[in-house]
Amino acid sequence: MRTTLLIHCPDQSGIISAVTGFIHGKGGNIVYLDQHVDEEAGVFFMRLQSEFDASSMEFALLEREFEKQLATLYKMQYQFYPGEERPKMALFVSRYNHCLYDLLSRYHSGELSVDIPFILSNHKDLQPIAEQFDIPFHHIPISKETRQEAEKKQLELLLSAEVDFIVLARYMQIVSSLIIDHYPTKIINIHHSFLPAFAGAKPYHAAFKRGVKIIGATSHYVTEELDAGPIIEQDVAAVSHTHSVKDMIAKGRDLEKIVLARAVQFHVDRKTMVYNNKTVIFS
Amino acid sequence: MRTTLLIHCPDQSGIISAVTGFIHGKGGNIVYLDQHVDEEAGVFFMRLQSEFDASSMEFALLEREFEKQLATLYKMQYQFYPGEERPKMALFVSRYNHCLYDLLSRYHSGELSVDIPFILSNHKDLQPIAEQFDIPFHHIPISKETRQEAEKKQLELLLSAEVDFIVLARYMQIVSSLIIDHYPTKIINIHHSFLPAFAGAKPYHAAFKRGVKIIGATSHYVTEELDAGPIIEQDVAAVSHTHSVKDMIAKGRDLEKIVLARAVQFHVDRKTMVYNNKTVIFS
Amino acid sequence: MRTTLLIHCPDQSGIISAVTGFIHGKGGNIVYLDQHVDEEAGVFFMRLQSEFDASSMEFALLEREFEKQLATLYKMQYQFYPGEERPKMALFVSRYNHCLYDLLSRYHSGELSVDIPFILSNHKDLQPIAEQFDIPFHHIPISKETRQEAEKKQLELLLSAEVDFIVLARYMQIVSSLIIDHYPTKIINIHHSFLPAFAGAKPYHAAFKRGVKIIGATSHYVTEELDAGPIIEQDVAAVSHTHSVKDMIAKGRDLEKIVLARAVQFHVDRKTMVYNNKTVIFS
Amino acid sequence: MRTTLLIHCPDQSGIISAVTGFIHGKGGNIVYLDQHVDEEAGVFFMRLQSEFDASSMEFALLEREFEKQLATLYKMQYQFYPGEERPKMALFVSRYNHCLYDLLSRYHSGELSVDIPFILSNHKDLQPIAEQFDIPFHHIPISKETRQEAEKKQLELLLSAEVDFIVLARYMQIVSSLIIDHYPTKIINIHHSFLPAFAGAKPYHAAFKRGVKIIGATSHYVTEELDAGPIIEQDVAAVSHTHSVKDMIAKGRDLEKIVLARAVQFHVDRKTMVYNNKTVIFS
Repeated sequence: MRTTLLIHCPDQSGIISAVTGFIHGKGGNIVYLDQHVDEEAGVFFMRLQSEFDASSMEFALLEREFEKQLATLYKMQYQFYPGEERPKMALFVSRYNHCLYDLLSRYHSGELSVDIPFILSNHKDLQPIAEQFDIPFHHIPISKETRQEAEKKQLELLLSAEVDFIVLARYMQIVSSLIIDHYPTKIINIHHSFLPAFAGAKPYHAAFKRGVKIIGATSHYVTEELDAGPIIEQDVAAVSHTHSVKDMIAKGRDLEKIVLARAVQFHVDRKTMVYNNKTVIFS
Repeated sequence: MRTTLLIHCPDQSGIISAVTGFIHGKGGNIVYLDQHVDEEAGVFFMRLQSEFDASSMEFALLEREFEKQLATLYKMQYQFYPGEERPKMALFVSRYNHCLYDLLSRYHSGELSVDIPFILSNHKDLQPIAEQFDIPFHHIPISKETRQEAEKKQLELLLSAEVDFIVLARYMQIVSSLIIDHYPTKIINIHHSFLPAFAGAKPYHAAFKRGVKIIGATSHYVTEELDAGPIIEQDVAAVSHTHSVKDMIAKGRDLEKIVLARAVQFHVDRKTMVYNNKTVIFS
Repeated sequence: MRTTLLIHCPDQSGIISAVTGFIHGKGGNIVYLDQHVDEEAGVFFMRLQSEFDASSMEFALLEREFEKQLATLYKMQYQFYPGEERPKMALFVSRYNHCLYDLLSRYHSGELSVDIPFILSNHKDLQPIAEQFDIPFHHIPISKETRQEAEKKQLELLLSAEVDFIVLARYMQIVSSLIIDHYPTKIINIHHSFLPAFAGAKPYHAAFKRGVKIIGATSHYVTEELDAGPIIEQDVAAVSHTHSVKDMIAKGRDLEKIVLARAVQFHVDRKTMVYNNKTVIFS
Repeated sequence: MRTTLLIHCPDQSGIISAVTGFIHGKGGNIVYLDQHVDEEAGVFFMRLQSEFDASSMEFALLEREFEKQLATLYKMQYQFYPGEERPKMALFVSRYNHCLYDLLSRYHSGELSVDIPFILSNHKDLQPIAEQFDIPFHHIPISKETRQEAEKKQLELLLSAEVDFIVLARYMQIVSSLIIDHYPTKIINIHHSFLPAFAGAKPYHAAFKRGVKIIGATSHYVTEELDAGPIIEQDVAAVSHTHSVKDMIAKGRDLEKIVLARAVQFHVDRKTMVYNNKTVIFS
């Protein structure tokens, strides 16, 4: 059984030796180890994958012993992930379909190893795509007056389906703290600019007006402050004076879908850690 | 003789036909033509290169006839550049040497076809490099009290050497309107971020703090507003959580020198046009 | 009515002036002009778009006059494309679905302005995707013995549906001269390497073995020589020693679909010209 | 004192735990650890940096104990590098100056932490640059007849200056086995194509002829087979039909110097390991 272990704790001497010694002592074969020290913040991060012959019962025992022998001593925040788990991903969309199509085709071909309990939207436009891929679609309209009520419904759906994380695949609405508090660093958004440039609405229009020579896309975890959460992945494409706003939007679609898909993959692979509003992305 | 003609004017039907007909009628062979219409702003841009057998006297005649027959009619702003002209480029530096070395080695190897009447700095650190390359070096210290006086001296040097354009090769001082007014869209700066993100001081520190996954560099024409002038060229490089501020600075050096060199080359090749605080870069 | 005109002919003085004068004289407003001279080969290329108020009858007249006044004189090969035409694109696939999904979702969202008369495959695996998107699917198995017969059937399908061009969206079979001769520079393939490196089978395996630090994808027009036709578009992605062959294949999927989609878009937009086994791609 | 340890050995369970336990037991604080397993080849690689309070005497002791306790047991090939060592780098050049200028300016500004005992060339063209930077220059002409004699002289110079590694900064000659055998995986070359495409002479001419849309540069360790050694670093740039061979050469210069500089930096930082004609580059 392959197990992924994520740790972060205050940096001090001897952590790697202690953890690898522990895993080795329990019969685990370490097949991957990456670590990072943020020297400024004094924080230690590690991602470690190991192969065990252990049954699941012994896995629970492993966690208890890790807690007792190491976690308390080194003040670790940590998480063990058994390999075979498929996280449950909810998709929030609005009217743009390129990110949705891209994620669904990755899901459908087995490239993206998740379950998708439902797609949720404030519009009905993309319902046919949900049907194409045989995924339940929930239409919850949102207006200023109904926002609070709508979000309660959203949360009920999320909780009753035991959703693990949410992907905002060009969902053009702001997600409130009601949802965020239940899913801290579990909501992935795609913003169509190289943040922190052009946060907020209509970034391609702003990019055109400023006359930039590159446009970008940024996927990040959602926090209360708009477009200001921990960045997971970014990419850019060259543009020139010949590109109208419409051309930028077209070119940006490919960026958005690729950048969002990479971020989702990192998250599903347990390669992301968050601290100080930044991410560590183990590769 | 190869002549480069740059035009911009209000867009209307028939301009290309009229201009190419004129050049053809005067015995010119058009070897390059690129044009652009900003449909939103209703502005037409053209860059046209042609080969003439003409002597320089006839060249003056050509300009007069172009003025009479076309420029007035179409309300053109235009400029003819004879091919053999080497523009005079002044270099302003401070303490960082990577952009200076890069430009000087391009100049020295003949890659960059300019004359360099002098290098100017508020520090003496880079004087030895100027000497390495046999270029006059002027040291004009700047402090809050002496800024106005210093800029007068700078302007005198620029005017007496008949400088055509100025390159701020990591010159860490703000250039005032005294200089800018004499050299509108003739001062090229390199800023060490992908503008408009991280304008102002210490962009790598800001990029590190925000946790971006790409860093960039931007060359632009200098206007009164800091880091807000028309962008000529940008490029980016991937970074990750493993990069400290120091690593970003190191990685950024290569970006800065390449992006600045490209912008300078575009300018020297008469490939840049400016309007609405944006650039048209013909390639 | 917007009309696109593509021309190539031996280079000589006066072509641009003559063509733009002709279009202007016929009442056309030139909205885009790009030209290129291959100085080594002595060939002139031009792409010109103009707006006419003309009816379709007058359009035929325009072509006849162009032929008479210019094309013969300058020995031009040329083509007028009326703007509203949607070309008919056939898709050939095998078992990989990522390029197919990507093209179909672009088609479905209106991003790609083509008609798709059918999808054709030597396997049945992707039939459900064709059904998802309501596009006819033809299954024509191919074996050494039946290859010739199979290709005759393919050609019949292509001709009876009046297909304009063919896209090999990871079609793992060699297309023979029977098809190529009917569709010269009308068959677009995607090869999963940066050609000319790693032509032929299993390029990711070869890239892994050679230890390259970048992988790529190349879209090209199909000619009789395998993977040696005129290149339309290429792109690359960074890899490292940490990437297994499987990782490269996964990373390559995104490259392949983006590079193929760009090539198809260029073709549909009449931006490609071919000569000397190379392409001119007007942007 | 910061020490860098590079290890490769047959993969087996427990190596990381054993090595980190050893370092920890000797009082070292591990500040960096990266490891890689080539699962196909069954080889384990590790780069580990640790801080010791130890004097150099104790450092020799450390090595002996490592040998005794671990290296023999795990059949390791390994190397300890004390942090303060500046390797001696010889530069071989011919007539192109861009890579030379770039490396020398990095050296001069302290960015590249090496000593440069001499620059060697078969031409005198770049001697003035050596003089600009106050570095001894040896001119050893090479012809078919004198090649063997010339290489003996080269080797004498290398050995008497105790050169650690050689950089071929656009040295247009083939290096023979006489030199290679003395400097296995210690000679870094820059080739002006994305290898394996366009190995051998005149790669830009070949790239132009093939009509590629990207050009590249590759730095690699020199082996007996031309342009076929382990690749250290590659990068590419977009080109189009508008680029002549001359334009590609100009654009390629920036690629070449950046790619070579990165490779040299990796080598100097002890981040490269070689096996099966491939590299592991720890970042």
